[in-house]
Amino acid sequence: MKTYGERAINLPNKTAQDLFTLMERKKSNLAVALDVTTKQEFLDIADKVGPYICCLKTHVDILEDFDQDLIDKLKKLQKKHDFIIFEDRKFADIGNTVKHQYSKGIYKIAEWADIIDAHAIPGDGIILGLKEIGLPLKRGLLLLAEMSSKGNLATGAYTEATIEMAKRHKDFVIGFISGKKYNSCEELIVMTPGVSLDNSNDDLGQQYKTPRNVIENGSDIIIVGRGIYGKGKDPVVEAQRYRNAGWNAYLEKLEN
Amino acid sequence: MKTYGERAINLPNKTAQDLFTLMERKKSNLAVALDVTTKQEFLDIADKVGPYICCLKTHVDILEDFDQDLIDKLKKLQKKHDFIIFEDRKFADIGNTVKHQYSKGIYKIAEWADIIDAHAIPGDGIILGLKEIGLPLKRGLLLLAEMSSKGNLATGAYTEATIEMAKRHKDFVIGFISGKKYNSCEELIVMTPGVSLDNSNDDLGQQYKTPRNVIENGSDIIIVGRGIYGKGKDPVVEAQRYRNAGWNAYLEKLEN
Repeated sequence: MKTYGERAINLPNKTAQDLFTLMERKKSNLAVALDVTTKQEFLDIADKVGPYICCLKTHVDILEDFDQDLIDKLKKLQKKHDFIIFEDRKFADIGNTVKHQYSKGIYKIAEWADIIDAHAIPGDGIILGLKEIGLPLKRGLLLLAEMSSKGNLATGAYTEATIEMAKRHKDFVIGFISGKKYNSCEELIVMTPGVSLDNSNDDLGQQYKTPRNVIENGSDIIIVGRGIYGKGKDPVVEAQRYRNAGWNAYLEKLEN
Repeated sequence: MKTYGERAINLPNKTAQDLFTLMERKKSNLAVALDVTTKQEFLDIADKVGPYICCLKTHVDILEDFDQDLIDKLKKLQKKHDFIIFEDRKFADIGNTVKHQYSKGIYKIAEWADIIDAHAIPGDGIILGLKEIGLPLKRGLLLLAEMSSKGNLATGAYTEATIEMAKRHKDFVIGFISGKKYNSCEELIVMTPGVSLDNSNDDLGQQYKTPRNVIENGSDIIIVGRGIYGKGKDPVVEAQRYRNAGWNAYLEKLEN
């Protein structure tokens, strides 16, 4: 098995290279899913977990007081702590629409997000639309090949079609949101949500797995949300705990 | 075959009832997909096409200058012209996330959109999350059962699973985005995008059908976008033309 650093070398996409290099440098395969609804909380937690993460996963469209100042401050935190920004927009429309959603509107996601994700459901057009905007900016796209929620439909033939779609656009598609690695495209990044050391589900269908579970299945990056900054948690303590759990699982996998 | 007005009577969802009643009253099964990127264009076109439509389909997240004033003016236009507002957000995340995306953030979609849509891919949790917010407000949800773009994955087992999901939540799921009617839930509304009298496709994979094609297949509402306000078009003339085409196709179908 190759290390993250070794895998960085031959990737065609600059953001993917940067991400793997950064992971090796920071010894972290932890992404934090920052699902809070105020700017203050957002910046506060990002600053606290920043030193321990490779990637900050955002949902800017749930912030009550989003503004350009938030983006400016987020970029400063990115410089200070050295992480990749992943706006988890889950684009899911036809090419002409997602092109606008990605580049325009209030959020202007293309200007600040290194990585975005999309559902494969609309067909290749969604990738073509996003690529028109993102490739000149050297951005990267993740496709949702599997989901962690109960009764989800990203399975079987759907997942296979998604993998084929990724293979047709390797300049821009840098990997998958998924629970496991796919043999036919081992070089692509696998990021896995729904990771927790403490919970097994929530009351809206989310199902959790441990860092070790998902790294053993071939995931490269664990995505942890409420497990790090939920009620009563200390984000610094929890980010260190998850960083260690994820990194140790990776080291063990390298040895086997 | 029942008329729109007859179908309104027994529906459990108030927005669905209102929509069918309004269609009968205005003699229109035309929804306009208002995909422009400035407030001025948005309000200008909405005011022009307003008299001829049953529904205005929006993508507020592509507007460069979105603000509360836009929503206030949109609501005034809704009162003036009598139409349903459908924010085509294509929610596609887990329940806990879509709940926030629907109610919070800059757009506060739940406050002004009568109808929203969602992909079924995350499983029932996405409906449960949206329903927590939307049902108390008497909103309605459309599920994307099929798409009109080339190579899309909303087919076969995926579509069937989506239909089953809709049946489990008939208080909130009022219908489908799809190209045809499903036998097992004929009472649900079918809205069909990708409708044009002039074009057969775009260069990002969108594939067009005529109003007659889709009404014959069991669609209830035709969604027309660039065909009405694209370059060189007069939105009033085109809205009347599509309204007539859609309504005549419906009357013919009623007679057969």
